[in-house]
Amino acid sequence: MKSFRSINGSIIAPQGFLAAGLFCDVKRLGTGKGSNKGQKRDLALIVSEVPATAAGMFTTNQICAAPVKVCVEHIANGKAQAVVINSGNANACTGPRGLKDAREMTALLAEELLLKPTEVLVGSTGRIGLELPMPNIRKGIAQIVKELDDSPSAAHNAAEAIMTSDTRPKEIAVECKLGVQTVRIGGIAKGAGMIQPGMSPTGARPASLPLHATMLAYLTTDAKIPAGTLRKCLREAVANSFNCITVDGDMSTNDTVLILANGLAGNDKLSSKDLKTFQAALNHVCLELAKMIARDGEGVTRLVTVRVKGAKTQKDADAAARAVGNSALVKTSWNGGDPNWGRIIDALGYSPAKVVEEKVDIAYSAPGAKKLTSSLKKGRPTRTSFDTLCAAVAPAEFDLHINLNLGNGQATLYAADLTEEYVDFNKGDISDPASLGG
Amino acid sequence: MKSFRSINGSIIAPQGFLAAGLFCDVKRLGTGKGSNKGQKRDLALIVSEVPATAAGMFTTNQICAAPVKVCVEHIANGKAQAVVINSGNANACTGPRGLKDAREMTALLAEELLLKPTEVLVGSTGRIGLELPMPNIRKGIAQIVKELDDSPSAAHNAAEAIMTSDTRPKEIAVECKLGVQTVRIGGIAKGAGMIQPGMSPTGARPASLPLHATMLAYLTTDAKIPAGTLRKCLREAVANSFNCITVDGDMSTNDTVLILANGLAGNDKLSSKDLKTFQAALNHVCLELAKMIARDGEGVTRLVTVRVKGAKTQKDADAAARAVGNSALVKTSWNGGDPNWGRIIDALGYSPAKVVEEKVDIAYSAPGAKKLTSSLKKGRPTRTSFDTLCAAVAPAEFDLHINLNLGNGQATLYAADLTEEYVDFNKGDISDPASLGG
Repeated sequence: MKSFRSINGSIIAPQGFLAAGLFCDVKRLGTGKGSNKGQKRDLALIVSEVPATAAGMFTTNQICAAPVKVCVEHIANGKAQAVVINSGNANACTGPRGLKDAREMTALLAEELLLKPTEVLVGSTGRIGLELPMPNIRKGIAQIVKELDDSPSAAHNAAEAIMTSDTRPKEIAVECKLGVQTVRIGGIAKGAGMIQPGMSPTGARPASLPLHATMLAYLTTDAKIPAGTLRKCLREAVANSFNCITVDGDMSTNDTVLILANGLAGNDKLSSKDLKTFQAALNHVCLELAKMIARDGEGVTRLVTVRVKGAKTQKDADAAARAVGNSALVKTSWNGGDPNWGRIIDALGYSPAKVVEEKVDIAYSAPGAKKLTSSLKKGRPTRTSFDTLCAAVAPAEFDLHINLNLGNGQATLYAADLTEEYVDFNKGDISDPASLGG
Repeated sequence: MKSFRSINGSIIAPQGFLAAGLFCDVKRLGTGKGSNKGQKRDLALIVSEVPATAAGMFTTNQICAAPVKVCVEHIANGKAQAVVINSGNANACTGPRGLKDAREMTALLAEELLLKPTEVLVGSTGRIGLELPMPNIRKGIAQIVKELDDSPSAAHNAAEAIMTSDTRPKEIAVECKLGVQTVRIGGIAKGAGMIQPGMSPTGARPASLPLHATMLAYLTTDAKIPAGTLRKCLREAVANSFNCITVDGDMSTNDTVLILANGLAGNDKLSSKDLKTFQAALNHVCLELAKMIARDGEGVTRLVTVRVKGAKTQKDADAAARAVGNSALVKTSWNGGDPNWGRIIDALGYSPAKVVEEKVDIAYSAPGAKKLTSSLKKGRPTRTSFDTLCAAVAPAEFDLHINLNLGNGQATLYAADLTEEYVDFNKGDISDPASLGG
């Protein structure tokens, strides 16, 4: 039985959090005159009414955006009270000017909210290599603090403001009991393209971490939890969610997951049972947001959960799942509804994972279901008919089970298909540079 | 000055080689009655009139097709006299039956030509996991030996017979002088999808080899050259040609390059100068065939030569080039004619290669030209206008120059763009299983 339940409100569901989202014209579409109505919001704000502990996970890309660098600095002491995020510009590869701009965003907000700049975190997403339009951002920040609110619509506005090529906002909240107290966790996220995150707490690459969108996720909780514990919980939740999705195999310069825990639920010191409960709830929030990102990837029509087991090692399991989930040929066959196991075993064979043809099993199921439709057994096709296999890969979501039968390594990867719409979107239109993607 | 010149005739240009190509219905389209006219040929034969030394390079995919296994065995002694190849079926993942079929193909041809089975090499390309239609293959082999011929049209028929999704045959021949004797090298190849070869002489993975189509290439020469020397020459030529192309980043189960050297040119023992001349000519043949494969990749509209220099190590240079050349986002921007350096530096940043943002230079040129159009200098965008950059990436072929400014590692990768046509082709049409790709 689940130890948590879904509630409304996303990031403002936990007590003491406020949010806002507005349009400040980050892309300089030029709206000096007339109305801004109908423009997608592009500046988001999340604020805790009281000081909070904080933890973050950041892209391990060696090319790392200015706001990520500033976040890593500001979060080092495990404390934060506000996060300001713009979409429409990644503030990446913008040199010293970019870093100055990111710092100014935190300083401006700190001034408005009577905080220290180090208590403010910052995020950006959009095209790489363009300087932020600071006059617009400054006006935006001055305005957005006036719109702070603890209503679901405020949270929804923030969720919209962080979107880039996303077709819909991504929001979730749950509550669970820690001792006698009810504790809430909320979150918003954005994704769409450049999605294969590989995040670590400092942005440094641990040897064990997969080297692989811009994805941003902001989590809030009213749990009382020390910074060190929060960091461990976030790391585990991200390892099994955001770090396990791939849309196109590209890891962004800006990937960021942040959590603020303001303690207003007033729970006692966490027992090990409480910690398990909190972790399970946080894992759920992160996994659901991660899946929303994968499902809403650019042009995506199918979400396939690649479940590898029997790998020689854990690392092999991850490598095998990523080879399959990132193979252009496998992804196009998913788009076509073609159960082409030949492309799957081909990808396994060129992956760094140890693979023995005569041992490979491949099967399908409905998401999370036990009943398998087997396509390959010990490297040989089963008698399952082509029509039956086509039916197994026809749904918008299905599980692909791969057993390498060589050991105990297991991995799960949530992978999107590759469609003509993805290519059309990302090839862009050079006659309209402002429309070009990240 | 080049020490070789182009000639006509591809594989039959060297003395003493015969070829043929015919339709034997490998895909079992069912043509029992009526005419086969207009069907693409699907069985190819190349024969030397006299015994030849031979060398091969084979896929390092752990899932390795039956004909590759048989080739590795038969070529171990450095001798061969004939090669038979079918398209339309990869004979991969076909278990003991597949191995038996591949051996039977060599035995049948050996019987017809009065050779030993071990003197015959074999190749297959097409969909994975289907058993070969041996009755059709047997009839085909009995017929094709009657059509052997040393005319350019026979070579052309063989080049057509090995095609799968290729839109055109790929043929080349050159001649060079070794001492006073004129020596010829000819070749045919096929590619189109599942193209990022990583071949070694035995199919075993050397640690240094990139872990990354079905591509097949068959080379003939009338040079007199010992098997050991031929093997070294082929390995060098493949390392700088077929192993340096990527269409979709997928490495096939069937990649094979074979060369037969029958000695009929009657050259003397090769001096070190002769060896250089031969190597240069062989390198040229392999590189031109490799580029023909990349240009004719499924849906490809642009061929980009990614030239990385200044990498910390050779391995880093290769990893950096492959991260860029296989990035879905970079490849779609090439399709759109968008000089999106942000996606390029993003891919460099998540590659395993060491990259320092403040040191990265990115520029463009016409193929092989010295005059560069700079887009990024020391990690910062140059003042080159967007229109000028668009013009640099508009041609069907251009060079992308990346200098990491960290060391002396260099690598060149020939990479195709990613198009809606690629996706459309590879998603296939499940209502017509016979049409589905490899």
